[in-house]
Amino acid sequence: MGYDKTDELAINTIRTLAVDATFAANSGHPGAPMGMAPVAHVLFNKFMTFNPKNPGWANRDRFVLSNGHGCMLQYAILHMFGYGVSIDDLKHFRQVDSICPGHPEAHDTPGIEVTTGPLGQGFANAVGLACAQAHSAGVFNKPGFEMFTNHTYMFFGDGCAMEGIASEAASAAGHLQLGNLIAIYDDNHISIDGDTKCAFTEDVTMRFEAYGWHVQWVKDGDHDLQGIEDAIKKAKEVTDKPSMIRLTTTIGFGSKLQGTGGVHGNPLKEDDCKQVKEKFGFDPTKTFVVPQEVYDMYHKHASEGAAAEQEWDSLLEKYSSEHKDLGADLKRRLTRKLPEGWQEKLPVYKPSDKAIASRKLSESVLEAIYEAVPELLSGSADLTGSNNTRWKNAVDFQPPSLGIGEWSGRYFRYGVREHAMAAMMNGLAAYGTVIPAGGTFLNFVSYAAGAVRLSALSHQRVIYVATHDSIGLGEDGPTHQPIETLAHFRALPNFMVWRPADGNETSAAYYVALTSQNTPSLLALTRQNLPQLEGSTIANGIKGGYVALENKDAHITLVSTGSEVSLCLEAVKYLKDNHDVTARVVSLPCMEVFDAQDKEYRLKCIPDGIPALSVEVMSTLGWEKYSHEQFGLNRFGASGPYKDVYKKFEFTPEGISKRAVATIDFYKEVKPLRSPLQRAFLQLI
Amino acid sequence: MGYDKTDELAINTIRTLAVDATFAANSGHPGAPMGMAPVAHVLFNKFMTFNPKNPGWANRDRFVLSNGHGCMLQYAILHMFGYGVSIDDLKHFRQVDSICPGHPEAHDTPGIEVTTGPLGQGFANAVGLACAQAHSAGVFNKPGFEMFTNHTYMFFGDGCAMEGIASEAASAAGHLQLGNLIAIYDDNHISIDGDTKCAFTEDVTMRFEAYGWHVQWVKDGDHDLQGIEDAIKKAKEVTDKPSMIRLTTTIGFGSKLQGTGGVHGNPLKEDDCKQVKEKFGFDPTKTFVVPQEVYDMYHKHASEGAAAEQEWDSLLEKYSSEHKDLGADLKRRLTRKLPEGWQEKLPVYKPSDKAIASRKLSESVLEAIYEAVPELLSGSADLTGSNNTRWKNAVDFQPPSLGIGEWSGRYFRYGVREHAMAAMMNGLAAYGTVIPAGGTFLNFVSYAAGAVRLSALSHQRVIYVATHDSIGLGEDGPTHQPIETLAHFRALPNFMVWRPADGNETSAAYYVALTSQNTPSLLALTRQNLPQLEGSTIANGIKGGYVALENKDAHITLVSTGSEVSLCLEAVKYLKDNHDVTARVVSLPCMEVFDAQDKEYRLKCIPDGIPALSVEVMSTLGWEKYSHEQFGLNRFGASGPYKDVYKKFEFTPEGISKRAVATIDFYKEVKPLRSPLQRAFLQLI
Repeated sequence: MGYDKTDELAINTIRTLAVDATFAANSGHPGAPMGMAPVAHVLFNKFMTFNPKNPGWANRDRFVLSNGHGCMLQYAILHMFGYGVSIDDLKHFRQVDSICPGHPEAHDTPGIEVTTGPLGQGFANAVGLACAQAHSAGVFNKPGFEMFTNHTYMFFGDGCAMEGIASEAASAAGHLQLGNLIAIYDDNHISIDGDTKCAFTEDVTMRFEAYGWHVQWVKDGDHDLQGIEDAIKKAKEVTDKPSMIRLTTTIGFGSKLQGTGGVHGNPLKEDDCKQVKEKFGFDPTKTFVVPQEVYDMYHKHASEGAAAEQEWDSLLEKYSSEHKDLGADLKRRLTRKLPEGWQEKLPVYKPSDKAIASRKLSESVLEAIYEAVPELLSGSADLTGSNNTRWKNAVDFQPPSLGIGEWSGRYFRYGVREHAMAAMMNGLAAYGTVIPAGGTFLNFVSYAAGAVRLSALSHQRVIYVATHDSIGLGEDGPTHQPIETLAHFRALPNFMVWRPADGNETSAAYYVALTSQNTPSLLALTRQNLPQLEGSTIANGIKGGYVALENKDAHITLVSTGSEVSLCLEAVKYLKDNHDVTARVVSLPCMEVFDAQDKEYRLKCIPDGIPALSVEVMSTLGWEKYSHEQFGLNRFGASGPYKDVYKKFEFTPEGISKRAVATIDFYKEVKPLRSPLQRAFLQLI
Repeated sequence: MGYDKTDELAINTIRTLAVDATFAANSGHPGAPMGMAPVAHVLFNKFMTFNPKNPGWANRDRFVLSNGHGCMLQYAILHMFGYGVSIDDLKHFRQVDSICPGHPEAHDTPGIEVTTGPLGQGFANAVGLACAQAHSAGVFNKPGFEMFTNHTYMFFGDGCAMEGIASEAASAAGHLQLGNLIAIYDDNHISIDGDTKCAFTEDVTMRFEAYGWHVQWVKDGDHDLQGIEDAIKKAKEVTDKPSMIRLTTTIGFGSKLQGTGGVHGNPLKEDDCKQVKEKFGFDPTKTFVVPQEVYDMYHKHASEGAAAEQEWDSLLEKYSSEHKDLGADLKRRLTRKLPEGWQEKLPVYKPSDKAIASRKLSESVLEAIYEAVPELLSGSADLTGSNNTRWKNAVDFQPPSLGIGEWSGRYFRYGVREHAMAAMMNGLAAYGTVIPAGGTFLNFVSYAAGAVRLSALSHQRVIYVATHDSIGLGEDGPTHQPIETLAHFRALPNFMVWRPADGNETSAAYYVALTSQNTPSLLALTRQNLPQLEGSTIANGIKGGYVALENKDAHITLVSTGSEVSLCLEAVKYLKDNHDVTARVVSLPCMEVFDAQDKEYRLKCIPDGIPALSVEVMSTLGWEKYSHEQFGLNRFGASGPYKDVYKKFEFTPEGISKRAVATIDFYKEVKPLRSPLQRAFLQLI
């Protein structure tokens, strides 16, 4: 096909925009954009199909910049192709309230698929996006109707290559034979500490081959546009393996400091900016220049993408008439709304129903709703039988050639890869046609903390099924018993932590998790059995907190979650029988959702006038918001049968009662005794 | 050398002990011990040198069971060799307060080097132990005095092999050419979800070769004792690469369910227990049997280990006379006490000294003390220039053949591998001769959460240098700005979170971190400059909290940390000038250390009678313990110059003052107004 001066001009435009924006911000990373401009140009202009006027088109090719610090590369390209990113936006790179923040954020900027920057995340997001494509194709594609055909392209650097999360995701992608995934490795030998030879001397090519990837090497990524094109073309032809193209580039190409760490994370000096522009034939006195012929070239490609979308839209209409149910399902999924009436499938329990572990209650929810909610995917990081994440008739998501599943399968075997699982779920959710749920022990969600944080920051509807949620897991002991974990995730903005006390609350948790389009959820679930509570209903549960046991003239409110709510109910009897104390009980399965209720309702739950004691068998940190005093566990747990462990730490009706009596005594003289919900001022949101 | 019936008997004794203990506990993992008994026997009895009577001997060979769920293997062996683990202890496997908990815990059980079970951790711990050996040899070994010669042996399974942390550590170990590290991969094709072919089909051998490891394969790990011996021997001969021996075994060897997932995480049924014993020639009616000839064999090996230690002790005495300084240094290090007077090197600041970022203040501490504290190692996960973790004359810890460092080097280039860094530091600390400090951005300590938790649980003196600690990092934006992170780590037991406000507090943080032998620390440090405070001294700082500005008849206490303390001091002026309100300021650099002060002192800081307002530019979760009202940031941050970001969120003297006034008004009518430190009952510790 050949490349001409306009191609070169486009590449150098990307580079000079990155130079200008980082210089204007006096902050940012010019090196990666300058080094990767050639491959970005070839990829976006020759291979990728997208419509800048509708960044949400379902079958667009996806692009992920896993080395997100190089985001000026992406912002420049988005602008040049005509996405909703203006030259002014580029000028406000890294300024407060700009849509060009320091690292790419999916919810801020049109055309950004996933939020990257924390290294390795984008790599695993891309694997998730590729899984979602393969799955959606498996479900929806029919002869003559290739509804989902897109590729996922991803750039990553040495930093991502070193991160464990990327290793996990690469191993998973190889196993899954994701032929629609093409990763380009910016092999520039530079990381922040300088030459990668100080810490990273492995054979990356061989490692990816060991994972089952198809690997190519383009040795002159600075100039060899044809070589880049050929490699991407070849990668597209390999459909039974993910592809990695090792692209040797010069970081900061064109700068006086090219090829050094000096150009990685700092803007170029003023004279270097000028020098670069002169070298590239740009006017050194001008900034933020995009030559018209470059706009023309890119806008032409963009209009081809718009036409492709139109074609796809027509295809979808035909599809909808030939495959009525599937067509309707697909159209509905793209609205992100769940099917009408699905919630009627949620299991409902009576107090007389038997005691069941909430991990089993969660399984019953999945069993009950999986047919009604076809976009729901489940999976586990190799703890399927313990997490109870798999409905009986589930088909595994696997490459058909393995003989153990199908692309259309809805159950993911993530392997013992918690961090990659979480980030792959972020990618799955970002694709737009599925809702991923994935399981591990609550304690090991911490392995995935980096990705969980990005679920929240990037507003992904992801569900963490976190079983074995406390010392109640018993014998596995302190290495597996969460103490700090719920405090951690309760401190995370835009994240719901659920700890249901019984069956109805578990159904409520799923209801809110599935209907919250922009907020991820974690469900902390027990290993041990829990009785079905008297006051519990789904309607109560979805408020995040409610009065589980009311008592007139109560001396104290016990506020609790999960497995400790039924203990509190026992404590109420113990208090009456042994101390002549009247107590009431509030179940608070989700603080974040409770916080969103109106104040009047919340104060009915945790009222003024009597003290509140919280009871939760883990860190008390944060419980002061809902209680005057806290009974918890601010030390590590113990290995033993769970009832013995509970007894050791006094989580018994007696132990709770003792503290309730002390609390009542302590607050007797305080006037007025306000609910802890009463605050002097509102928090910024 | 040959193997006879006693060897077989020893192997089957390990197996039957694992069967009996898991059966008695009705819990645990018999599969791995039964499969790995042969290699454990060969390794411990033919290769490892140790003295069960002194598990702390400095030059012992180290053993790490990364697949820690198989701990009955280790407990059985410790018992059989004569460590302080009795048959009764084995009978109390997985019972409350037993020294044989559900997973191996370093501080509970003699002979357990590191706390494992969370998968992949032990792998990286072993890399750390091997680094510590190489470093100690580099520092102390002299001609004729090979003081440190031990090997580190580590078992890992498919679960560990899938974890990103193990990938990171394996890549680092390959780079570091750790010839003293020998890992044995239990290639049994079974994980909890069943056959590994459902998720893990990569070529593990090739992957480790890509990392630069020497790899061998023993195909019949169930029977080929000679093959195992030969492979370990060969691995010891390869001194410029870590070795991995892929050992194909049958999980649950001997059980009716051998080779299946059924024997992984569940005790054998009663009839299977009997069947196994009969198969192995044991009396099926007896439990917890160790034949005398097996004791004899193992005790003989143990006594050889004791003799080896005696020899080493004599060598140390000779060494101490020939190399006086080094000998004295080594002996001192083994007591875990720091050199006399080291603390006099800690930098001290006056209020008139210039404003400096606390990451730079941390660098000044390292620069000042590195000579006085030779056991202090530093390093960074590829953020050296940003974390300021490297003193000027530091030598890198590198294999000399690379030409960029020495084994005796004290600066670690961990690469972009936060999780492995943390777990390697746990291994380094566990070795006993060094104190590791390692840097990354505070936000990315979360990537290492799984290992940080184990620093705390296993009482390791590890220092996390966590820079760029808030929205104060500015332009990098929300993906890099911690919100939930300090709440997370404050909820972690046995862990100190420091957020110093200036130079003296930074020195205090290092003082406490370095002198706390059994508690890890995290130092949250700013990117931006901080002024030196009036009331700040090292003596004040080491109390964890103190009155930074006293004011008689104050209306309110402002409680704050780090970069917000000086803002609070400005707010005091603003309050006086604009609201005629008198405020006092408490700096609380470390809650955990403050909590350990006597109540009288703490109440002097945060007294009864006036309200307290906390000010910290991140999640307010947990601050209720020290304040009546909280000003923080319970949402994600923003990308921009840090002063603009602070302004956006009202972290200004005005913003603080507004909330202080609201707080005073709100609490006017409450009588008595108690300090938040007044509690109704004490927490269990």
